[in-house]
Amino acid sequence: MHAARLLSEARAGVLEANQADVVAAKADGLSGPMFDRLVLKEARLEGLVKGLHEVASLPDPLGRVNLDRQISDSGPVLQRVSCPIGVLLVIFESRPDAVVQIASLCIKSGNSVILKGGKEAARSSAALVELVLRPALELAGLNPDMVQLVQTRESVGRLLELDSLIDLVIPRGSAALVKSIKEATRIPVMGHSDGLCAVYLHSDADKLDHTTVAQMVVDSKTQYPAACNSAETLLVHEESLNTVFPLVAASLISAGVTLRCDELSMAAVRAGDTEILSKAASIVAVAPTPGNVEPAEPTDWDTEWLGPTMSVKAVRDLPGAVEHINTHGSGHTDSIVTADPDGAGAAFTSGVASSSVFVNMSTRFADGYRYGFGAEVGISTARLHARGPVGVEGLTTYKYIARGAGHCVALFEGGGALLPPAVRSAYHHVDRDRE
Amino acid sequence: MHAARLLSEARAGVLEANQADVVAAKADGLSGPMFDRLVLKEARLEGLVKGLHEVASLPDPLGRVNLDRQISDSGPVLQRVSCPIGVLLVIFESRPDAVVQIASLCIKSGNSVILKGGKEAARSSAALVELVLRPALELAGLNPDMVQLVQTRESVGRLLELDSLIDLVIPRGSAALVKSIKEATRIPVMGHSDGLCAVYLHSDADKLDHTTVAQMVVDSKTQYPAACNSAETLLVHEESLNTVFPLVAASLISAGVTLRCDELSMAAVRAGDTEILSKAASIVAVAPTPGNVEPAEPTDWDTEWLGPTMSVKAVRDLPGAVEHINTHGSGHTDSIVTADPDGAGAAFTSGVASSSVFVNMSTRFADGYRYGFGAEVGISTARLHARGPVGVEGLTTYKYIARGAGHCVALFEGGGALLPPAVRSAYHHVDRDRE
Repeated sequence: MHAARLLSEARAGVLEANQADVVAAKADGLSGPMFDRLVLKEARLEGLVKGLHEVASLPDPLGRVNLDRQISDSGPVLQRVSCPIGVLLVIFESRPDAVVQIASLCIKSGNSVILKGGKEAARSSAALVELVLRPALELAGLNPDMVQLVQTRESVGRLLELDSLIDLVIPRGSAALVKSIKEATRIPVMGHSDGLCAVYLHSDADKLDHTTVAQMVVDSKTQYPAACNSAETLLVHEESLNTVFPLVAASLISAGVTLRCDELSMAAVRAGDTEILSKAASIVAVAPTPGNVEPAEPTDWDTEWLGPTMSVKAVRDLPGAVEHINTHGSGHTDSIVTADPDGAGAAFTSGVASSSVFVNMSTRFADGYRYGFGAEVGISTARLHARGPVGVEGLTTYKYIARGAGHCVALFEGGGALLPPAVRSAYHHVDRDRE
Repeated sequence: MHAARLLSEARAGVLEANQADVVAAKADGLSGPMFDRLVLKEARLEGLVKGLHEVASLPDPLGRVNLDRQISDSGPVLQRVSCPIGVLLVIFESRPDAVVQIASLCIKSGNSVILKGGKEAARSSAALVELVLRPALELAGLNPDMVQLVQTRESVGRLLELDSLIDLVIPRGSAALVKSIKEATRIPVMGHSDGLCAVYLHSDADKLDHTTVAQMVVDSKTQYPAACNSAETLLVHEESLNTVFPLVAASLISAGVTLRCDELSMAAVRAGDTEILSKAASIVAVAPTPGNVEPAEPTDWDTEWLGPTMSVKAVRDLPGAVEHINTHGSGHTDSIVTADPDGAGAAFTSGVASSSVFVNMSTRFADGYRYGFGAEVGISTARLHARGPVGVEGLTTYKYIARGAGHCVALFEGGGALLPPAVRSAYHHVDRDRE
């Protein structure tokens, strides 16, 4: 892939542009994760080059025939064939490497893309587009205008009005960003507005190795708390409250998590049990500041903490857990912990309406890279079109292509001849088309 | 299928309710196609029973696994499995048989459906729901509330606000209906707002049998002019203007169609050529009132005539035809007439972005029944999710289901252990998740 080679070659230019962004950001007082995401280093560029090779090596998502039949015995041949969606508008925040990741997925799936990056990364994004992506398209004999970069907030506003020209908007960023875009456009928007994921400890979780159970929950919550696939809620079957839950709770607290418990789960936390505490400490290295236990408030069940806090609630049975998730969850990713994957596990995966539903594993696995898509443009929590992590396949649609040999419907419908309207009107009432 | 049997048994009750609707409609002065569509007869009920059997015999669209892989070598197993969308709101106009057709597709695909029929068909719709559909669900051990009927316009307005409870709105009716619903709701809407279909006569159409070519165009335009898949526009390659076009034009005129021609095509119509007129008359029985030829106006290219009028335009080449269609068409169905299906035909099907693209056949074939879907809830001209005729498959979505054995992401990412936040922060910059 030309882009991978060009990115290696243009390394110096890209890093220089990034350095200018970094200096400007420092001057503006940018800090924390936003600042961290802005900084491109050699290792990160190498990761991008590797990612480009991975996307290039994915099977071609276009031209796949997923339906192939004949319209009646002597009729035309009908195929359903995958094709690009069209023109995409991708809006993301500070991270300049997203430019390369997203553009590569769009190009691979045959779409044109208009990229709007964060203003902090303006110079880095421009360097990546001008030095890498557009020259790579030209080398491949494609139109470099397939990738375009816009920089100002005003231009986004105008682009969001072009619902006859832009086919899909993909916002990548905060829930507030996604919400504001959905409200500002009639173009379809693909994205998740929240990542309110839950882990549910079933009644039989006691039969599993307790350490493994605690590890799964701790991983779901703490492996990267700011990610959308991190768990925000722990649902505990009442029968598990006094079996495996105390170790899970102690491990979370040891890992620095504050638990917001309902009454039943609060009563089951064994803050004073030294045996459990020492086992918990062996599961997770003790955090500099251990978490607390606090009473939950009703709004907690709808809160995406995005940090070291977790809502904990006891449920009476599996349907209760499913109902809680379908009511309060965001359709992202939810996981059950059970000794009976075929029974309780299947009931859970069938009942929970989320885009990813797991059995006995961390919610953190919900990710396009881990799903084998090479990369992802985002995670969709919608019900229609692509759901879950969206890779190149989610950026395609399909069309029906049919080939005939002069086939007419009139000859198929028993008329046997092409009749003038006056005679044909007799047939109208049996027509199956729209009213 | 219980519904088919119940519909046969409840025939008398349904016809009685329909008769009451018919009497009321007559009193209100309803006439024309709206009135025709309202009337249920024995033959039409038999057609519905047959349709129910067909939908019941379709393969189960749920639980299909269309992706199955392991997340890395020792990782969890990931599957993508088809599942229902959820709760659908289907809004349609007078035709009561649509109640049965649509509900059967929704039930087959595991969705719940709220039906809003036209007020003219209120009694017929209620009879079909209460005497056939809900009892059939109960007999099948399903919740009869999976199918619900609402009758008033006010309740639709309130339902369109429930974007957290209703997953998809399917309007079946006029472009005005679809447009008004799209503007009134944040729920995704699946439907076509226009059926502006074109037939393009390529430069080599002369090599085909002229009679067959004329039949295809006449069928596309006149077989049921009010249907959305009827052609509204005829594009003619300049080289075909004086070869096959005169017969096509004469045939359309003989069939009662008025041609709205641009200058070049106008000049090519041979109104006085008796040989062509007699050949045209042999292709279509002469209509009581033959059509005319009139000069086209610029707005014609964007007009869905829905009647015996057709816009005609000369184009310089195939890309010109493709561009016209992608600019003025509605993404429904377009057809090329060519002697070179592999060359020009493939270029056309690749270039035209519509949901159905045909080679050498009438646009009227774009229909769920003819595509083998048993029936259709409508035809979608959107780019996302289901496109073209939408049957049970288009009423499903999918979820990712993964099964692990206590898998944690931390152990997969080189950490090798579950680390507390302070240590883990070092890993954050390589995380591939959302910003």
